Amino acid sequence: MTRIVVWNEYVHETRGDEVVLGNYPDGIHAVVADGLRELLGADADVTTATLQEPEHGLTEERLAATDVLFWWGHIAHDQVSDEVVDRVVRHVHAGMGLVVLHSGHYSKPFTRLMGTTCSLKWRNDGERELVWTIAPDHPIAQGVPHPIVIDRQEMYGEQFDIPRPDEEVFLSTFDGGEVFRSGVAYRRGLGKVFYFSPGDQEYPVYHHPDIRRVLANAAEWAAPTAPRRDLTADQHPRDWFLNR
Amino acid sequence: MTRIVVWNEYVHETRGDEVVLGNYPDGIHAVVADGLRELLGADADVTTATLQEPEHGLTEERLAATDVLFWWGHIAHDQVSDEVVDRVVRHVHAGMGLVVLHSGHYSKPFTRLMGTTCSLKWRNDGERELVWTIAPDHPIAQGVPHPIVIDRQEMYGEQFDIPRPDEEVFLSTFDGGEVFRSGVAYRRGLGKVFYFSPGDQEYPVYHHPDIRRVLANAAEWAAPTAPRRDLTADQHPRDWFLNR
Amino acid sequence: MTRIVVWNEYVHETRGDEVVLGNYPDGIHAVVADGLRELLGADADVTTATLQEPEHGLTEERLAATDVLFWWGHIAHDQVSDEVVDRVVRHVHAGMGLVVLHSGHYSKPFTRLMGTTCSLKWRNDGERELVWTIAPDHPIAQGVPHPIVIDRQEMYGEQFDIPRPDEEVFLSTFDGGEVFRSGVAYRRGLGKVFYFSPGDQEYPVYHHPDIRRVLANAAEWAAPTAPRRDLTADQHPRDWFLNR
Amino acid sequence: MTRIVVWNEYVHETRGDEVVLGNYPDGIHAVVADGLRELLGADADVTTATLQEPEHGLTEERLAATDVLFWWGHIAHDQVSDEVVDRVVRHVHAGMGLVVLHSGHYSKPFTRLMGTTCSLKWRNDGERELVWTIAPDHPIAQGVPHPIVIDRQEMYGEQFDIPRPDEEVFLSTFDGGEVFRSGVAYRRGLGKVFYFSPGDQEYPVYHHPDIRRVLANAAEWAAPTAPRRDLTADQHPRDWFLNR
Repeated sequence: MTRIVVWNEYVHETRGDEVVLGNYPDGIHAVVADGLRELLGADADVTTATLQEPEHGLTEERLAATDVLFWWGHIAHDQVSDEVVDRVVRHVHAGMGLVVLHSGHYSKPFTRLMGTTCSLKWRNDGERELVWTIAPDHPIAQGVPHPIVIDRQEMYGEQFDIPRPDEEVFLSTFDGGEVFRSGVAYRRGLGKVFYFSPGDQEYPVYHHPDIRRVLANAAEWAAPTAPRRDLTADQHPRDWFLNR
Repeated sequence: MTRIVVWNEYVHETRGDEVVLGNYPDGIHAVVADGLRELLGADADVTTATLQEPEHGLTEERLAATDVLFWWGHIAHDQVSDEVVDRVVRHVHAGMGLVVLHSGHYSKPFTRLMGTTCSLKWRNDGERELVWTIAPDHPIAQGVPHPIVIDRQEMYGEQFDIPRPDEEVFLSTFDGGEVFRSGVAYRRGLGKVFYFSPGDQEYPVYHHPDIRRVLANAAEWAAPTAPRRDLTADQHPRDWFLNR
Repeated sequence: MTRIVVWNEYVHETRGDEVVLGNYPDGIHAVVADGLRELLGADADVTTATLQEPEHGLTEERLAATDVLFWWGHIAHDQVSDEVVDRVVRHVHAGMGLVVLHSGHYSKPFTRLMGTTCSLKWRNDGERELVWTIAPDHPIAQGVPHPIVIDRQEMYGEQFDIPRPDEEVFLSTFDGGEVFRSGVAYRRGLGKVFYFSPGDQEYPVYHHPDIRRVLANAAEWAAPTAPRRDLTADQHPRDWFLNR
Repeated sequence: MTRIVVWNEYVHETRGDEVVLGNYPDGIHAVVADGLRELLGADADVTTATLQEPEHGLTEERLAATDVLFWWGHIAHDQVSDEVVDRVVRHVHAGMGLVVLHSGHYSKPFTRLMGTTCSLKWRNDGERELVWTIAPDHPIAQGVPHPIVIDRQEMYGEQFDIPRPDEEVFLSTFDGGEVFRSGVAYRRGLGKVFYFSPGDQEYPVYHHPDIRRVLANAAEWAAPTAPRRDLTADQHPRDWFLNR
């Protein structure tokens, strides 16, 4: 069983914005978690955590019992404590999967794991996004049409300042003609990282059945290859390599 | 000085098609070669060769004196003799650069070097193509705008059945919303291979100054890292590796 | 259940060589197949095929019902018919996994899928080979020590003229100080390809429990992501891409 | 002309250790810089900087006028100020090349750019290291034997916890049978990064003519593709991507 935590900064949804609340009345994390539960069923244990909880809901004990962490953040990246970020990164190095969503490209965990600015071009005009599969054999691309059609979405465009991906799964295009590497995968230490750009607080993208399928596939793909090892707070994955 | 041969099957241009002749009265190879001469000047020695010449103009002696071979073919791939294809592939393995253009994705040398079907999706509706740079530091992408705008062009779309590129330089989008990996680079043996999809007999794409810049950059990039070694017909690059 | 066919040219073992027969009295294929059955149990259906059978035992019907093909060849590469090679390559493009063993680096299917000479350096002095895992999270590397120790083995050394691997799993070293990329993975079309160099007719490497573990892991990794589609003889995977 | 700064923490050489002083009486940086001057001549402007200088010798103005920065550190990584590290990383993102040497694998700039622990296995027994070229066409590998032989050196071994390299140039083996990815290349933003493991304070490796050749090649390879743009302290490469 894959133990999944869906983390959300949970700020946009608490400000009374009607569009956002229309899409995500209980928060983006609730909708993402529902989608994972719906598609993975008994294969997954899905819980949520938010910025506002003590230690942002990501204690050492909880991360040690997490196989895959989903991350959604946008306007509160700076409010995430460096101590929690260190912890998340350490657990990724130790084998925890990480699925970074949309505006999470600028989150502390993602930029720390990438080593680049993770900058991109954007424009919010409610454009149609087409998500094309370029790796048809990839587990994350199974069961979705080519392309996935998202009627209205924020545009994210190249140049996307990321390291060369280990695997490219999806490329997106937009009404304006822009292109974006919208589904890219990395290994960092023993952990797998998947970035997936579709999804925004202003559009109901996380209700879209194909997007839900991608997220469910990503959860299974990002789960550790081997069962998570015990990792107490004073150990560091760095030392495992020394001792092998 | 880079010794360049521009090869063209030279069939479309000899059938009296007014559109094709309007674009390329002396053949696509003539226009590509002129662009290279214009931009590379004294740094390059540019000649041409066609299917109709003895040994398709690609004798052992000529390939041994070639640094970069450009390849344009479309409706006559099957007429290229296997002996010449073997020779081209052997010289790529030995360090000769190869720049494959547009419909050359189905050519014998390219499919032989890739090991895949090199299949793709296409539609010829004279659509606008935007060529986006995703590797801004790449030598082939220097000096061109982001994006390059081609007003009318045949659509080539994913899925493009190629091996994972060693380097991705350009991604293209089209009016219909499709996406294509339009500039991709590989190493095969000691030789560099660059595939660039813009360009077609029905559109004057090879007159486009930005496309010419890309081709000139590609010629310089694909040139051998070290001076070409002597390679007589009875030697094989395979043996070099054995003897190192 | 993974349907596996272990193919062997089966020539060394039929010439009365006592060393070879001591290691593989019923052929290398028999020992490889036994190892797969032992470790995969009911998860796998393992059969064998050899060069001497009609169509080398690799008919269209059989390949259509194969998930993973293992390939061992050495001194009879040229006796494999091009028609069967075309068929194998087409099925790899269509999703069949291919695990190429040791001297199979020069086999027709492997060189066709790679597009390079696949040349390497070698010396047969019965040296110790150490097989180091460099991708500790890779499924193929699970359950084996770091390094795997093979007491006596033929040396295969760099430079190995292969395309840049999509994934590097193992690196080997030898008593003479040489190094070799001994476990490398590729995608070609919808199919996965894994090359693994340990194993030779003169040494009992395929009886080694760690090597058996790697081969069992490789079988599971190379199995198609999605169930094999129907592929009759007159269809070509190339067309699937056109129709998507 | 390539503007090169060789940075050294310069601690081992100031403690009266006779072995270290025998190898590097004026500091490792002096020997590395001499090698670059010797081989690059008028093509390079080579200067040095050390931890002890104000801002470690790496002011904003100096980095803005640097094409390639070499980095040697070992026991004083923690003494490098985070402000200077931020500056170095920003200039790499903006196009400055970075060549990281030996124990610099644990330096702040390198781990920041990699996003992994950069951990490895090591043993200091004065073993022979063989440095094998696996990318014979790579510019950094030109002009050196296969293998480079280093008579006595510290062992660095896999597993090396780095992201998958964009390019692998060298693999090393040691008397103990270990293997190491000793020459690996990355892109980060507009900057190129090369890590090269040979070299240690206890061994005269930076006097070795083949190692000097590699470092000179690396300097030329890591130089920016285009002339460095103006980057004042209040600009960030992140913004360039937004504005393209």
